[in-house]
Amino acid sequence: MISVDAMGGDRGPSAVVAGLARSAAQNPRIRFILHGPEDELRRLVSSRKSLAGRVEIRHAPGVVTMSDKPSQAMRHGKDTSMWSAIESVRTGEAEVCVSCGNTGALMAIAMLRLKRLEGVNRPAIAIFWPSRGPAGFTVMLDVGADVRADERDLMQYALMGASYARNALGIERPRVGLMNVGTEENKGKPELKLAHELIAGVADEARFEFIGFVEGGDIPSGRVDVIVTDGFTGNVALKTAEGTAKLIRDFLREAFRATPLSRLAALMAYTSLRRLQKRIDPRQVNGGVFLGLNGTVVKSHGAADATAVAAAIKLAARLAESGFTRRLAARVASVGELGAAVQVGSAGMEQTS
Amino acid sequence: MISVDAMGGDRGPSAVVAGLARSAAQNPRIRFILHGPEDELRRLVSSRKSLAGRVEIRHAPGVVTMSDKPSQAMRHGKDTSMWSAIESVRTGEAEVCVSCGNTGALMAIAMLRLKRLEGVNRPAIAIFWPSRGPAGFTVMLDVGADVRADERDLMQYALMGASYARNALGIERPRVGLMNVGTEENKGKPELKLAHELIAGVADEARFEFIGFVEGGDIPSGRVDVIVTDGFTGNVALKTAEGTAKLIRDFLREAFRATPLSRLAALMAYTSLRRLQKRIDPRQVNGGVFLGLNGTVVKSHGAADATAVAAAIKLAARLAESGFTRRLAARVASVGELGAAVQVGSAGMEQTS
Repeated sequence: MISVDAMGGDRGPSAVVAGLARSAAQNPRIRFILHGPEDELRRLVSSRKSLAGRVEIRHAPGVVTMSDKPSQAMRHGKDTSMWSAIESVRTGEAEVCVSCGNTGALMAIAMLRLKRLEGVNRPAIAIFWPSRGPAGFTVMLDVGADVRADERDLMQYALMGASYARNALGIERPRVGLMNVGTEENKGKPELKLAHELIAGVADEARFEFIGFVEGGDIPSGRVDVIVTDGFTGNVALKTAEGTAKLIRDFLREAFRATPLSRLAALMAYTSLRRLQKRIDPRQVNGGVFLGLNGTVVKSHGAADATAVAAAIKLAARLAESGFTRRLAARVASVGELGAAVQVGSAGMEQTS
Repeated sequence: MISVDAMGGDRGPSAVVAGLARSAAQNPRIRFILHGPEDELRRLVSSRKSLAGRVEIRHAPGVVTMSDKPSQAMRHGKDTSMWSAIESVRTGEAEVCVSCGNTGALMAIAMLRLKRLEGVNRPAIAIFWPSRGPAGFTVMLDVGADVRADERDLMQYALMGASYARNALGIERPRVGLMNVGTEENKGKPELKLAHELIAGVADEARFEFIGFVEGGDIPSGRVDVIVTDGFTGNVALKTAEGTAKLIRDFLREAFRATPLSRLAALMAYTSLRRLQKRIDPRQVNGGVFLGLNGTVVKSHGAADATAVAAAIKLAARLAESGFTRRLAARVASVGELGAAVQVGSAGMEQTS
């Protein structure tokens, strides 16, 4: 069962319901609880055959808008579709919640209602990044849940990211890297050395391979499956990559429009260019996942259309079916004590060496 | 006069001399001091007509390699071409130095011999970033001279970056932005608020427009001319953008190779694709500049070929002709006291508000 917030996206509930219909047609096992204004949703759902008998509508008249502050949403958001959608995960009716709404508000309500997993200090947002690797994607976290992360947070991001890559991408033993700059003497952040030690100490127990420091250029390289960094750095990297991709796309479009010959060439290469477009289309990898809470929340792009919503639902369904929330909690719990031991050990080493 | 380190690049001195020849043919005023093993350089230079009478060769038998540590280069590098090239700037024989060598070693030797500008705590490396702006580029700094920067450093980066954009890109009143994540409540790094205040306080005096916080996606957007950030974030952003551009280039190549029709299309679009390639070609914007020292150093890519070396020389010549080193020093000195005053003012405000 997937809990879906119908409201708060830039394209309104019709795009969300269209995405649901597409997912339902592709996956016969999937069922939804849909949150929002009942009358409007009933009308939208009834016009979609593939959704017949598979959507339970939960009335919630309020909407969290993109301009609402997280603190407002936490204090006054009880009647909203976003709150209601998260509530279905809290009560256990649904395994995973999907929303296209305001990221800050969604994280704030999710933190408030679902609470952090035992042993997790800072939840993180993980995303997929197109890459040359066999799975076609690299997982990166945190990309913006929190602007800072200490070595223990980064170690937990490694655990959570590895578990996520295993369940969402099917990578049995993910390769985990820690973002840094260069590996030369005098380069790199000194505080990342501690995180390096901690992550190396839990890798075996948590069944991932730690490949050490990686750089920004390694993100899409295919030599790493999970990249761990603080939310400030991760968010800057994500936005920079999106901006770069958009710039190149625009320049490419201009290049193909430049002359009659190039316009003809663009027509001839249409299928190939479409294939390229699909490989780097953010809609195909839509869904940042909040990790580290008692429940899994998939944040879809605010501008998501039916294709993008369907991609987020597909991810949510995969995580629900694999029992991801429970597996992640077990992983964090089992390694938590070990991580604490490693940390004590490293502090001791610092004093004696 | 431009001082050029002939050694240390991946393609050896022949690529450097080829770049010099190209620059000399384009710019009749330019003259060089070329540092490296005399016999080899004399042979390479004598085969280039455009260089006749315009290159003074300065013998330096040693080479700083890419794997040398900065500390080694500082202690044992006196006989190297890199050291000698910087020495020509220190003595005032040349206005600007260009090197394709090891970045860390180059920065270390430059710091040691040129010393920091009075009032500058951390020097920075500034680069050009392809953008939609009228100048075609955004300046970003620091991209890796130092992994950290406090609010005073960031304020100085704003001064130095604005001065650089004015002299290298001809932007009379550059728009300066401070890198952060989001502008929502609870988002962004708290310590950046202080930097925001300091930069806003010197903008008028330093003749730039401060547009406040910007995000990663703004780098190529054309709405900002100079982006200020710490060297860790800047380096991750730079490497991430390079990795993204390379991934898309590879995917594009694969897309065009997919079918006979797409291969034909690629041939037809050749000129347009070349134009695109040129717009995002890192060789055309080759040259990170070290700012904040008593002298200007242009760091060319290690893998630079003749085209890339010529681009770095062109930048160096422009900076030399505009008297950039002197102007930058004057700017930092004139605003230095004002900046200190603003800082005291803001500390006072914190206590009373």
